[in-house]
Formats: sequence, C-alpha cells, structure tokens
Amino acid sequence: MKTLLALFVCVIASAATAEQKQPNIIYFIGDGMGMEYVSAYRHYRDNPDTPAVETTWFDRHLVGTASTHPEDALQVTDSAASATALAAGIKTYNGAIGVDGQKQPVETILERARTKGYQTAMVVTSQINHATPASFAAHIDSRQKYDAIADQYLDNRYQGKPWVDILFGGGQRYFLRDDRNLVQAFTELGYAYADNYDDVAAIKHLPALALLADKGLPFAIDSKEPRRLSFLTQKALSLLGEEKPFFLLVEGSQIDWCGHANDIACVMHEMHDAEKTLQALEDYINSHPNTLLVATADHSTGGLSMGRDGDYAWRADVVQGIKASANTLTDQLLSANDWYREWLALTAIELSGDDRAALKQSIDRVAAGETRADKNTAQTELRGQLLAAIDKASVTGWTTSGHTGGDVGVWALGEGAQAFVGQQDNTQLAHQLFRLLGE
Amino acid sequence: MKTLLALFVCVIASAATAEQKQPNIIYFIGDGMGMEYVSAYRHYRDNPDTPAVETTWFDRHLVGTASTHPEDALQVTDSAASATALAAGIKTYNGAIGVDGQKQPVETILERARTKGYQTAMVVTSQINHATPASFAAHIDSRQKYDAIADQYLDNRYQGKPWVDILFGGGQRYFLRDDRNLVQAFTELGYAYADNYDDVAAIKHLPALALLADKGLPFAIDSKEPRRLSFLTQKALSLLGEEKPFFLLVEGSQIDWCGHANDIACVMHEMHDAEKTLQALEDYINSHPNTLLVATADHSTGGLSMGRDGDYAWRADVVQGIKASANTLTDQLLSANDWYREWLALTAIELSGDDRAALKQSIDRVAAGETRADKNTAQTELRGQLLAAIDKASVTGWTTSGHTGGDVGVWALGEGAQAFVGQQDNTQLAHQLFRLLGE
Repeated sequence: MKTLLALFVCVIASAATAEQKQPNIIYFIGDGMGMEYVSAYRHYRDNPDTPAVETTWFDRHLVGTASTHPEDALQVTDSAASATALAAGIKTYNGAIGVDGQKQPVETILERARTKGYQTAMVVTSQINHATPASFAAHIDSRQKYDAIADQYLDNRYQGKPWVDILFGGGQRYFLRDDRNLVQAFTELGYAYADNYDDVAAIKHLPALALLADKGLPFAIDSKEPRRLSFLTQKALSLLGEEKPFFLLVEGSQIDWCGHANDIACVMHEMHDAEKTLQALEDYINSHPNTLLVATADHSTGGLSMGRDGDYAWRADVVQGIKASANTLTDQLLSANDWYREWLALTAIELSGDDRAALKQSIDRVAAGETRADKNTAQTELRGQLLAAIDKASVTGWTTSGHTGGDVGVWALGEGAQAFVGQQDNTQLAHQLFRLLGE
Repeated sequence: MKTLLALFVCVIASAATAEQKQPNIIYFIGDGMGMEYVSAYRHYRDNPDTPAVETTWFDRHLVGTASTHPEDALQVTDSAASATALAAGIKTYNGAIGVDGQKQPVETILERARTKGYQTAMVVTSQINHATPASFAAHIDSRQKYDAIADQYLDNRYQGKPWVDILFGGGQRYFLRDDRNLVQAFTELGYAYADNYDDVAAIKHLPALALLADKGLPFAIDSKEPRRLSFLTQKALSLLGEEKPFFLLVEGSQIDWCGHANDIACVMHEMHDAEKTLQALEDYINSHPNTLLVATADHSTGGLSMGRDGDYAWRADVVQGIKASANTLTDQLLSANDWYREWLALTAIELSGDDRAALKQSIDRVAAGETRADKNTAQTELRGQLLAAIDKASVTGWTTSGHTGGDVGVWALGEGAQAFVGQQDNTQLAHQLFRLLGE
C-alpha cells in the first residue's frame, strides 16, 4: 500500500501583546450580488483566446456562503433588514434601519469600532443615506426616511462628533435641502467637502464628506468614471489608518439596481468596478497585513440565471459587446437618425427582421405619444423590449424585478479571515466582527 | 489597547507510514442541485415553531463552490460533460461519457481506484447506466447509447472482472434485453442480483447488482420507499471496506429530474433523501475516520429562485404541504370524483374561483380529448397549470426546463477534506482525488 500524505490542520489561538494595534476592518457589501452574478462575471471577464476560463478576485478568495432571510423567514429580505443583520447581528423586518423588530436601536459594528477608538468610513455608489450604509450609522423605523437618515449622520454623536469620519457617495438633495443645509453643518465641524472627483482627489485629511450626485452615482456602464467605487475606496484608504485603526464599509450599491432593472450588461460593469475595488483592498492588505477584509452580498436580485428556456448556453461574448445601460440605449435610440445603426453600435446584436419591425413600432409609438404620460409608457415598453432582445441574444434568464432568497457568497482575507470559512447566517458575520473588536 | 486573539493556521503535511490503509473515497453528486436548491431546502426543513432557521447537513459541511461549464465555455453543461469532468478531471463536450473532446477514453477516478486495489461501487436513483454514473465506468461518445453503456459495465474488465463491484439503481430494461441478458451474465460472474428492496436487504456479499425499476426509480415524493437512496447507500456501505479500501459514487439523480419538471415539492423530497444519505455517510465516517466524503452538484437545473415577480417571499410552508409530484397530482385529479377536494388533500393550496374554473376547464378538456394524442396534450397543459398554481402560491421562480450555468456547492468531510476549501473548477475536484490515490 502506498504511503499517503495526510494533512493536519492545527489552529493555534495566541494571545497577542497588549501593544499590538487592533486590526483594521473592511466590510465590503455587493448589494444584490448573488452567487449567479459571480459565476456570470467570471465568464464575462473570460479571455476567449485561452481554453481556460480565467479566475476572478471572487474565485481566489471565496471562503463560504451566508443566508440572508429577514426576521420573518417566509419573506425574502430587503437591503435594510439584511444590512442591519450584517451591521448589528440581529434579524429584523424589511425596511428597518439599525433597529430591531420592536423598532429599538441596536448597536452596529461601525459604532462599536468607533467606541473602541477606530476611525470610521463609508464609501458607496448609491446616495450615502441609502438603506445599506444607513443601517450602519443610523437608527430609524423606515429606509424611506432619507432626510431623517441624513440628519442622523450629523446629529447622532459620539464624544461630540458625528459617528462617521468619511462619507463618500451620492445624495446632494438630502444634504442640501431647503429646510436644512447639512453640508454647511458638516463643514463647520471640520469636514472637507467635495461634490466632484477632482475635489475628492484634493482632500488632504479626514473628516470628509463627498456627495458626487443628486441621488445615486451614474451606472458604471454609462459613467465617465466607471471605476468610481475603486477610486473613492482608494482615496478613503489614503486618508485612514495613520494613527488609529479603522472600520471601512464599502458598498457596490448599484449591482442591485442593475439587477432590479434586469439589465445584465449594467450588472457586469458594476461587478467590474466591484472587482477592481476588491483588488485595491487586497493590495492594501498586502502592505498593511493587520487588516481584515470580509466581503459578502446582502441578497441576490432578479433571479438571474445563465441559460434559460431550455437553451444550454450563456453568451458572455454577447454581454461583452454591450456598451450602454438599457436606460441610455433607450434614450440614444430615440434620438438617433438611424436607430438600428445606433443599436448595433451600442450592442453589436444583430436582430431578425421581425424583431427590428417590433422595435421600430415601439420607437414610433414614443414619438407619436401625445402626452408626457403616453410617451413615458411607450418608452418603458421600448426599454423592456431592448432588454428582452439582450436577454434573448445572451440567453439570460430573470424571474423577478425584486430580490430572491438564496444564500450569497462570503469572501475573506487578511487578519482573522479563517473565522469566516463555511456556511453561516448573515448575522454571524457581524458577531464575528464584534468578537474581533471585543466587548 | 485591548489584547487580541490572533489565529494562526498551520498546515502540516505528514508522510504516513506505508502500513496505513488508503482512505475510502465517497463521491456524492446531487444532480442539478444548484445553490438555490440548498438554500430553499433549509427553509423547507425549517421548524416554524422556532425563531431560528435550523441548519441542514449542507450548512454544516459546505467548504466551497465549483464551476461547471463544459469545454465550450459559452455553453451550459449537461450531466455527461460535468460527470466526465468530476470523474476524469477534463473538460469535454455535452453528451460525452468518459471521453474527451476527440472522443478518446479518459481514465476515471473509479478506474484509478480499482487499479489501486479499491473496491468500487455506484448507487443512484436513475437507471444505473444514466449519464452521471456512466461517466465513471464507461467510455462512449454519446449518453444516449444506453444499451452500449450497460454492455460496457459487463464487458469492460480489469484483471478479468467488471470495473464496478456494486451497481445499485434502476434500468432493468437495459440489462434484460431481447438481444442480451446482462443480469444473467453478471450473476454468472458471481454478482448477487436483486430487483426489489427486500432482496437488496438480503444481499450478503459483493459483487452485487440491484435494478429496482424499469428505468429510473419513482420520485421520492411518490414512492413507497422515499428514503431509497439512503437505504441503498447504507446497504452498499455494509458490503464495502472489509478488506480493501473502497471508492463509492452516490448520485441523487432525480433532484435534476424534478428540476427539469420545475416541480418544487418533488425537488424538496429528493433533497431530503439526499440529506438523509449524506447524514448516513457522515455517520459512517464517524466510525471509519479514514474516509473522505466529497459532495457536489454537476450543475443547477431550472433556474430556480426563492421569490419571483417582485414578491419578497418564499413560502416554504406551502411547499411543505404538497404530498405528490405534478405527474401524480395530474393523474389523481383526473380520476377523482371531486377534483378540488383531491387537490386540497394533496396540496392544501386554496385556489381562487378563477383559478378553479380554469383548472376545471383543463380537466374537462382531457376527458373530451378524442384521440390519445389530444388527451396527452391536454394532460400536459393541465400539469403545467398545476405547477403554475404551486409556483404562484409558494412564490417559486423558474427560467428554464434545462440547466443553468452558475457555480454549485462543494461539501467535504473526513480524511483530506481541507483540500476542497474555496472556489475551484469541477475538474479540480477530480484532480484532488487522483492526487489522493497517487500515480
């Protein structure tokens, strides 16, 4: 009988010295980034000139999965309940922002970090007061109360200061309101403020607030700054961690929004910005090993499937050829002299005569709309047809405009990553982080 | 600053003594058992009287995920290409049974084990010559060649004997043919033969052949032997491993078949038999620690989603109440005196007046069908309506009658399980097992 190699894994818990700096904690949430998104992204990024399908960042660092259901396990979670689970380690109802089922505030991992002397930061591509970041730094019964959430970012204090040192995202309309100018109030507290990328680049110190759009930032696929999340994240890293450890929340917010729109090319471009961000975070950890990165999703969106209707294919090559979101495609086709030429330029998808005739009819219907409402209805139908053509050509399936209930991936690297291996509930991710910070 | 606990993981490779018995290897394949199936199953098994959602076997032993695409990465795999990947560690074309892209035979892990002195066994709920088991013990250009695959089980030999010592599943029609009686030939080689569960229970020694149905076994949900896979697996374990190590392939074949039918209750009952089987395998490992269990799926089926059409729910409680497959439901409703009473007895799903009227019409259409073909068409439509009613009530989404391309789960425990942590391609699972067996 042959000699065997047997592997023994031994885990040694060693008490570090009191002098050791507490680890930086980076929490990355890909909103709506279900398992099928991650698989599809690998194919989307595949180099067709090699026989192998190349791995992505996600493949190299997967350690497990997480369940996402809200307090009522027969429901599928929204982003507020799941972000509260990820932030505070408790199950709550859909819509809840940092509060439990009785609408009582619960301590979040960002807050715990702050009370332990950490710098704190949130970088997102939605408005900064959207459900996911809100659940880490506000406490309110409804995610819809955007103004009140923005107010809490300023008004809730620890040792006289707002809880979050860096707030990067969108949402000018909530911070520059007729009834209250939060930007001015933040700057009076010493926050640098930026409303464009050049000014973000010029920020020299924290605290800092950057609001780069009226609400969410433009989709990556349509943006002049398609790497906006990776840029903002790297900027935040450059400001953090000099004297104190930090807690940094990064959210790829719009993976979910593209998923709600059932817009596969839009999803893939958001995933690419997310991957670039995660790569930048890994680079940071390589030079700052006393840092833990935990990445996950809050839920999946859209019921995406690679393949549909009995067709055993997923045409990543078709998705690779698409250069605009369905929103932008719709606008461009309506304003083009030669709509089909424009379609080909933006998607490279050849349409059958029947499909072309149907689209032409829809375009004409928008033009013929007599009221704004008529035009809007016709335009929505047109966008739906464009997405249907893309899904047909790429063999992409969807079951919903909302969320779905399956487990999501968990990725971890750096200090303490081993604790995240395997399947666990999303609340457990928060518990692990609380444990790391200590009581 | 607080003292931290730092975790250090050290992996020590230790050369075992030459006397150590080689490890038993158990490979479990849940055909079609995508990630969403595993999440849905947890909710299906949830005890509604406790606030927590209880974990399943799958939750306790998940270690990673695997990609499943065939040689042409723009395609979604079938069970033949993926089983060949899992068996032989190579990418091939859809339909290929143990052959590469040039239709040349490739060595499988079952064959390697046999040449290393292992006993070998395959236990499935499909016909035993179906694509998945076939890819471990036959080499042929097309999965459709069922007779030839059955012939190969007998005719392909190692040291004068068939490659597989235990063959448990269905498929009498392929082994008891007018042109050839393979059962007789196997018995002449010393195989015990059983065609019913009592006779399986009475088998005292290997080699053994059990064919328990004409083709596949009945669906668990409709079966008098709903735990048939766990029963057959435990029987195989009782026969194996006395003097030699063994390689055992176990396939939950019909998870996939229920998925193709988009029949969620049917899927959940197959998953339950799979979980019972995996629990039995874990129990075996607890008393035989020199055993490795690797479990995975070959692909996902149906594009299942928990939640659909914008509804943030998945009603596991509805699925729990369903007592028959859609096939059986259809038959029962057609032969019932009071079809709606029968429907309620078998599904507990209350229907609206409109839905009842529509179903009644379809039932009448079957009765009114003048030809066999008319009746069949009407019956297929009726079955589709029943499934649609179940999906609506349970908020279950599907995108296809075929397969989908996302990564599947990987579960491992026992000797060498650590090697399967993380994301990898399905071919890598085979490579890890080949490495364990040695060149």
